[in-house]
Amino acid sequence: MVRKDQVAQLFEQVVAGDRSALGRAITLVESTRPQDRAVVGDLLERCAAISRDSLRIGITGIPGVGKSTLIDALGMDLITSGHRVAVLAVDPSSALSGGSILGDKTRMTRLAHEDAAYIRPSPTGGSLGGVARRTREAIALCEAAGHDRILVETVGVGQSELDVERMTDLTLLLMITGAGDELQGIKRGIMEAADVIVITKVDDQARERAEQARRDLRNAIHLLPLRPNGRHPEVLLTNALTGEGIDGLARHIAERCTADREAGGLEAQRRMQDVHWLRKAIETGLVERFNADPLAGPAMEEAEARVRSGVASPFRAAEELLDRFRTGDAPLP
Amino acid sequence: MVRKDQVAQLFEQVVAGDRSALGRAITLVESTRPQDRAVVGDLLERCAAISRDSLRIGITGIPGVGKSTLIDALGMDLITSGHRVAVLAVDPSSALSGGSILGDKTRMTRLAHEDAAYIRPSPTGGSLGGVARRTREAIALCEAAGHDRILVETVGVGQSELDVERMTDLTLLLMITGAGDELQGIKRGIMEAADVIVITKVDDQARERAEQARRDLRNAIHLLPLRPNGRHPEVLLTNALTGEGIDGLARHIAERCTADREAGGLEAQRRMQDVHWLRKAIETGLVERFNADPLAGPAMEEAEARVRSGVASPFRAAEELLDRFRTGDAPLP
Repeated sequence: MVRKDQVAQLFEQVVAGDRSALGRAITLVESTRPQDRAVVGDLLERCAAISRDSLRIGITGIPGVGKSTLIDALGMDLITSGHRVAVLAVDPSSALSGGSILGDKTRMTRLAHEDAAYIRPSPTGGSLGGVARRTREAIALCEAAGHDRILVETVGVGQSELDVERMTDLTLLLMITGAGDELQGIKRGIMEAADVIVITKVDDQARERAEQARRDLRNAIHLLPLRPNGRHPEVLLTNALTGEGIDGLARHIAERCTADREAGGLEAQRRMQDVHWLRKAIETGLVERFNADPLAGPAMEEAEARVRSGVASPFRAAEELLDRFRTGDAPLP
Repeated sequence: MVRKDQVAQLFEQVVAGDRSALGRAITLVESTRPQDRAVVGDLLERCAAISRDSLRIGITGIPGVGKSTLIDALGMDLITSGHRVAVLAVDPSSALSGGSILGDKTRMTRLAHEDAAYIRPSPTGGSLGGVARRTREAIALCEAAGHDRILVETVGVGQSELDVERMTDLTLLLMITGAGDELQGIKRGIMEAADVIVITKVDDQARERAEQARRDLRNAIHLLPLRPNGRHPEVLLTNALTGEGIDGLARHIAERCTADREAGGLEAQRRMQDVHWLRKAIETGLVERFNADPLAGPAMEEAEARVRSGVASPFRAAEELLDRFRTGDAPLP
């Protein structure tokens, strides 16, 4: 796909702002082919060598809360302030249809037409556990391409959200005021990961509920541990369609990050995150190496047949297969 | 912890309905210690040997939708019909506080006092990507202990939900009618995984909205691919506090599963799921073996130091570490 001698050229194109090259580079880092690995390492090393002041912002919240609309509005605000924006999605793709449920360009109607914005469509297809894998690396590529505001969108409230917190500088938790007990619905673990809680879709009809939710949240927040920067999350009210609160949100984010950067906290946090991503990269690499081994295929087929016929439990079949490779029946992994 | 010669005894205690033994057995299968692995394989093999007619029901939905309350009501209904219930949670624990956000016994007030119910508290602490790992194995243990209705609860709409669909016979998707566009919020990938859509908290105030949501959902559902059993999901209205619709839900589940079992679809689906769990067990096993290797610790520390000081990118450091082990510098993994 990309030969080793072509990496320098691809990297130059990315740095020059060639959008198609950026897309190809991200596809390359998402590749699971063993022969692409050295090339990817080279590419990422080049990215790491050019340092830029960037801000990585995680955006999370349940489906329907208005993530895309807010990203569209916030992204436009950032562009107006002279920034270049990239939008990435950490997305558990539909395992059944292969259809993507996030990151659809058509949902960010204004941003999609801006030269200063790059929207990475979410992966389609995708294997369980593997889809979010290379988002961290895609961030590095977008930054090398000159995008200094990286918006990382994630659906829902599960595993992927905790991963996002470990690749961004701060996390926005989007909430909508609904039919009642929305505060009970937001569990401790989710609240703890938020730097800014953004109440969305605040219109005249919802304003009173939103103000009440803000008061309740501010009370609840003080029971939580402080964020790494020593602060509690702020609660802001927004309406992405009318633009209400968007500029205030952008300013709040900028102020927080400037303070964190000056205090050295931002850089320290990124180093900590890098250690986390080292561990994730090892996990991913172990599985990739196993899958790429020519002997793994036949061994897996045999194990699957035993499991399918009920001769062995999945656990036992996996242990036996791994023990075989370990004791040297095959040079793997 | 448990020696090989103690497995037979532990298994007998589990089968005899000893709740404390069941708890210890689940803790054992969740162990990551290499020395426990053979024992766990033995234990699970014994479980597989005793066949019981069980039903595994996944219960999913966003926070606040009322999962615990529904499980409490549905569980009581099942017990009244003579079943024995087990409740397990697939739970991305709070990575920050180690606090658990699910599966709290205190939230299932009636079920928690029933001899015919076993509620497994969710894992505390827990490493990223590792928490949901042994739920499949815990199901096997609960079934061996005579629980024939297994309710597997999962938070949210991400990765963990797709995993749950691969360990249950059918999936209930819980929805609440809220402040507006709740249908837009439920994305294709989530709807596709549902066998029954349960609208919760239907009271007089919400009834009209709930009926409208049911009509909308029924229209939307016909655009989706059929479930493996050749059906589209049904939409049911419930109120777990008043009990409205709970018995109907229990009957609907029973009818579906009887039909599926008689047609042979249930058993075929479980075999397919076993193959999926074989693959997951291999991934888990690869990482466990790596972590358990005495040489991995020092190598990781060295790699972490290089990443922390910015000398190497996480990707490159991981690749180099894995290549070292692969090319025989160390007998691992």
